[in-house]
Amino acid sequence: MASLIVTEAELRRHLPPDAGALAEVENAFTWMDQGRVSMPPVMHIDVDAQSAVDVKGAFVRGVNHLAVKIATGFFENPKRGLPSCSSTIVLLNAETGHCDCVFLDNGYLMDLRTGLAGAVAAKHLAPIEAETVGVIGTGVQARYQIESLALVRSFSRVLVFGRTPEKVAAYCADMGRRLGIEVIGVDNPETLVRRSQIVVTTTQATEALIAADWVGPGTHITAMGSDLRGKQELDPQILQKADLVACDSLDQCLVGGELQHMLGAGIDREVIELGAMTSGRQPIARVPGQITICDLTGTGAQDTAIAVEALRRIRRVDGGITISCQGRAARND
Amino acid sequence: MASLIVTEAELRRHLPPDAGALAEVENAFTWMDQGRVSMPPVMHIDVDAQSAVDVKGAFVRGVNHLAVKIATGFFENPKRGLPSCSSTIVLLNAETGHCDCVFLDNGYLMDLRTGLAGAVAAKHLAPIEAETVGVIGTGVQARYQIESLALVRSFSRVLVFGRTPEKVAAYCADMGRRLGIEVIGVDNPETLVRRSQIVVTTTQATEALIAADWVGPGTHITAMGSDLRGKQELDPQILQKADLVACDSLDQCLVGGELQHMLGAGIDREVIELGAMTSGRQPIARVPGQITICDLTGTGAQDTAIAVEALRRIRRVDGGITISCQGRAARND
Repeated sequence: MASLIVTEAELRRHLPPDAGALAEVENAFTWMDQGRVSMPPVMHIDVDAQSAVDVKGAFVRGVNHLAVKIATGFFENPKRGLPSCSSTIVLLNAETGHCDCVFLDNGYLMDLRTGLAGAVAAKHLAPIEAETVGVIGTGVQARYQIESLALVRSFSRVLVFGRTPEKVAAYCADMGRRLGIEVIGVDNPETLVRRSQIVVTTTQATEALIAADWVGPGTHITAMGSDLRGKQELDPQILQKADLVACDSLDQCLVGGELQHMLGAGIDREVIELGAMTSGRQPIARVPGQITICDLTGTGAQDTAIAVEALRRIRRVDGGITISCQGRAARND
Repeated sequence: MASLIVTEAELRRHLPPDAGALAEVENAFTWMDQGRVSMPPVMHIDVDAQSAVDVKGAFVRGVNHLAVKIATGFFENPKRGLPSCSSTIVLLNAETGHCDCVFLDNGYLMDLRTGLAGAVAAKHLAPIEAETVGVIGTGVQARYQIESLALVRSFSRVLVFGRTPEKVAAYCADMGRRLGIEVIGVDNPETLVRRSQIVVTTTQATEALIAADWVGPGTHITAMGSDLRGKQELDPQILQKADLVACDSLDQCLVGGELQHMLGAGIDREVIELGAMTSGRQPIARVPGQITICDLTGTGAQDTAIAVEALRRIRRVDGGITISCQGRAARND
């Protein structure tokens, strides 16, 4: 018996944000809707006020591997020149429990699947014609979300808002080059929201960044920053005002997503899981001029989906490093 | 940045059940008593009726790594000639969250720390003079428990009871050779319990294997098989009858250990955590003739303790395989 060790560099080479990866992450939503997913609540290990470890995992009936992802958020890291967030994924054989593969991906697969989940939301909910996309935040997900969005919508302009001018400038230069379109910093979120047909929020905020009256007809918002109790990016009145509110997992979003603030705001409205749309069980007629919201917290099913696809790609090129039980390493290339 | 990959073979070579490893696992109990441990409930992923994944993890204030252990129990595996249980441990840097080390230990570290935890229980609770030790079960833990027990008590005879005569015979031959003492199969658990001063139960049983009236004065029992809702090895009346009942974690044992059956049996008695003894906070005078019980479920703190010790030993011999971010593997030997 042996295990395959796969590094970040290989994963970036063989599994970029592409249509195949998007399809796999979309499957994860469908699996949940089909009741095929055994997914316990997120396991949260507190380290200190600035640092924590979150473990997600999901078994999916009919899928021959299950992933356990160990994600870390250590928010003092930037002071040391290190990224705040990272992750390691262990992929178990669903027949035997054997550790078939370890992805030493330093968070790449997590970033990738999170960006792609945003694209799945936009694919099903956002206006087809979206000239301008607005992104709040200038970090890693501000990049992955917009790069993934480009797989499902053709937009010609990105507006970005962030608190640090240097980061906004770096984002504009970086993403302008990568996407080959205009990427423009704006100095307040209101301007951004009023001018965009698709808005993506990607922050660690703990209070609303977007007010309800900024959100006009024909706007889609994907809020992906909130994933823990106490986080918030949207005024809950936006959820009230929207024509349609979707989320990745009701269980998770009511605890850690934007939906956690509904009850306190006295809002009681229908929210559907995105899986009902991806599976085709509950087709939604897209009506021009509607306001649509999607609240994403990230699911273990998505981790299993992206990790299974990663293993498939790495095996196709005979990549990774095989480590046998006896401790011998064989470089597969 | 790089991660160290360590295999089962290396771990077996450099970290056998020895006094140093025992001391580290004993520390894990003390850490819990000192309130230094941040340890969420076990994360349980159901695969099917015969298979599940359990994730445990703990951060310990003052310890520079934290372990997340992914343990699997796939009870159809023996039909394929594979062991039922396995595990993989990911060791994160407690300062940065970086994955410093992955132990591809195939369950070895889990087996080791579980056996050593039993020895910690016996060290603090079992009679000093114990001629005969009885073990119920003939599997992996029946071996590790008794081998570890030999670190803390000098016994000259082991009695073993199991349902399968071939397994009992194999156990007697194997352990007799390993310990250099008499290891004898008995044909019923009552004889075993009545003749032993220390009894260890190591089964997957879901109903009591030991009746209360078999347990005489001067007996210590460590029940380590039950770790999930529905499992049971002891008649709850034994807990009532005992002079002292200890456990590794009240929170866990009340849910998945022997203690889960107390309430239903109308038993309300004091149970102390072993950490209160290992830390010296609540010294227990050992009184000859007492009946003592310890209920063990296994804690994430123990996983962190054994994994940190494993990393220390492997680094001392410059072992493991270093895998850099860029995907280069370097064999450290």
